[in-house]
Amino acid sequence: MHVEVVRGGIVESRHRIHAAVVDAGGALVASVGEPDYVTFWRSAAKPFQALPLVLDGVVDHFGITRAELALACASHSSEPGQVEQVREFLKRIGCTERDLLCGPHPPLSDAVAKDYQTRGVRLTAVYSNCSGKHTGMLALAGHHGWPVEGYVRPDHPVQKRCLAEVSKWTGVPESQIGVAVDGCGVACFALPIRNMALAYARLGPEVRSAEGGVRNDDYSLHTPHSALRIVEAMLRHPELIAGEGRPCTEIMRAHPGRVIVKIGADGVYSGLLVQEGLGITLKVEDGHGAASILAIVRILEELGLRPFPEHLRERPMTNSRGETVGALRVRGGLTR
Amino acid sequence: MHVEVVRGGIVESRHRIHAAVVDAGGALVASVGEPDYVTFWRSAAKPFQALPLVLDGVVDHFGITRAELALACASHSSEPGQVEQVREFLKRIGCTERDLLCGPHPPLSDAVAKDYQTRGVRLTAVYSNCSGKHTGMLALAGHHGWPVEGYVRPDHPVQKRCLAEVSKWTGVPESQIGVAVDGCGVACFALPIRNMALAYARLGPEVRSAEGGVRNDDYSLHTPHSALRIVEAMLRHPELIAGEGRPCTEIMRAHPGRVIVKIGADGVYSGLLVQEGLGITLKVEDGHGAASILAIVRILEELGLRPFPEHLRERPMTNSRGETVGALRVRGGLTR
Repeated sequence: MHVEVVRGGIVESRHRIHAAVVDAGGALVASVGEPDYVTFWRSAAKPFQALPLVLDGVVDHFGITRAELALACASHSSEPGQVEQVREFLKRIGCTERDLLCGPHPPLSDAVAKDYQTRGVRLTAVYSNCSGKHTGMLALAGHHGWPVEGYVRPDHPVQKRCLAEVSKWTGVPESQIGVAVDGCGVACFALPIRNMALAYARLGPEVRSAEGGVRNDDYSLHTPHSALRIVEAMLRHPELIAGEGRPCTEIMRAHPGRVIVKIGADGVYSGLLVQEGLGITLKVEDGHGAASILAIVRILEELGLRPFPEHLRERPMTNSRGETVGALRVRGGLTR
Repeated sequence: MHVEVVRGGIVESRHRIHAAVVDAGGALVASVGEPDYVTFWRSAAKPFQALPLVLDGVVDHFGITRAELALACASHSSEPGQVEQVREFLKRIGCTERDLLCGPHPPLSDAVAKDYQTRGVRLTAVYSNCSGKHTGMLALAGHHGWPVEGYVRPDHPVQKRCLAEVSKWTGVPESQIGVAVDGCGVACFALPIRNMALAYARLGPEVRSAEGGVRNDDYSLHTPHSALRIVEAMLRHPELIAGEGRPCTEIMRAHPGRVIVKIGADGVYSGLLVQEGLGITLKVEDGHGAASILAIVRILEELGLRPFPEHLRERPMTNSRGETVGALRVRGGLTR
């Protein structure tokens, strides 16, 4: 499988894909390219960086809401409502915007970015797509009595706690996980995509073993100290995981209760097919974000999740005159 | 050879390179990946789209200056001075900005783009990086008495004339050249990168056979109806081929008279080592522009052209906090 850039019917460029589809037992169910490809998980690791909030009792300690937990797993669009909810989250844990160490950047949503530019909105740390994750990290520090200062540093207890959680779910020993600095300043983790997929798959049995199982019409689930609360937060709040018009939100909204997906920077995408218990992670070898969206949708389709809106399946390419001159489209499929 | 994205010492992504180094006789002197890789030449074809201006007598007819000829080969930065020169060029050939059909876009230079945004400059067609090429095409139409209207259409005599010239220099029959619509609306051409390299190589002997040869200190050359005038225009005006701080300009300025290079969109780069008579074309398989810059510099180095400024050899990667978190760098080299 790869994603082609086609101009006038001729392939101009192509993006190679590596992917692993894994069940909760660790079996490789399907793959693309090299399923053991090593790269950084980036923001697709956020659910596992948020898990300590549930498992260590931070959520119950502060009374963190499900929406706030979703924002801790999110790469949000900096929409006014999202930013307001992060501010509430900060207040709830006794912190302020000044405690946030994430760097500012233009909103990931083009529409929001344009709006803020027009209105001259000053983009502070709380507008970072990672501000929910950072607020969660501040909460983790506060709960444990760790210093709030320097919580982004790889040797800070917060980052070590996240590494331990990533190691637990992926099955990769901490010593074998590569650690570097992410776009927002915290630690990010390098490991095989197959193990990233395994971590997502392992969220599945917890969901299915919960009382009443997962129902499409009402997937409310209640298990106080479990990974389930992370999955539930993401399933219930697709609008917070990304934002209006962005792929994670649109993919989850297309099949409510069936799937969680999380994009990471530089062409990473992870997901869980809830009922099937299959974890997925893909990497576009060259880091191309748009290609990663088309590829995750194609993989979900091949695993039985259909339909998806056409604009998530093929992306038209226009030129400076507004003419449609080509498209990005997926070629090939999973190897089983 | 490929270009790696390295984060904290670990490879996160990589960009595969295909390249061909060819002499004027068509011999493959060196290569990377697949030297017969087919893709679109995009803006790296501009010197050959400008050649009819010299060969058909358009330059002499209108008294087109060397700087204007350089702009016809350029993907300029929309700098105020460059835009002013294109306006003069339009006036010289009896046209106005309203005749230009290139679509508007933000300047390719970040600095210029930011300046224009701050000052609220309205970006019309003359600000397009391709406005020199389009003005040349208007001149070609005017000279031959072809209609100016619709000069961008693939069936217009201007575009057919460019296709014929591309076919002549690349040695690929017109029927085997793929034609599609470029970013600015004119025809663009798909063919093997080896043949693109050959076209550049074929400019070399013309230069070296010219009276006095090419001298580093004074490469003025005078042959009225020859490809030489294109090479001379590019060698003399590196500041017009791209602009301040952009790679084509910086690469040519680093070795005056020794090399012409021209970037194309989506990871294409072509060049001619003037004294060596070697033509080069590379394609980043996934279309990554920054990777193409590092790759062309590495190839020029391997072919003996040194030194280059460090920022053209490795590109640091910073995050939203302004921290340096990694780099783009070239791995491997040419196969001979």
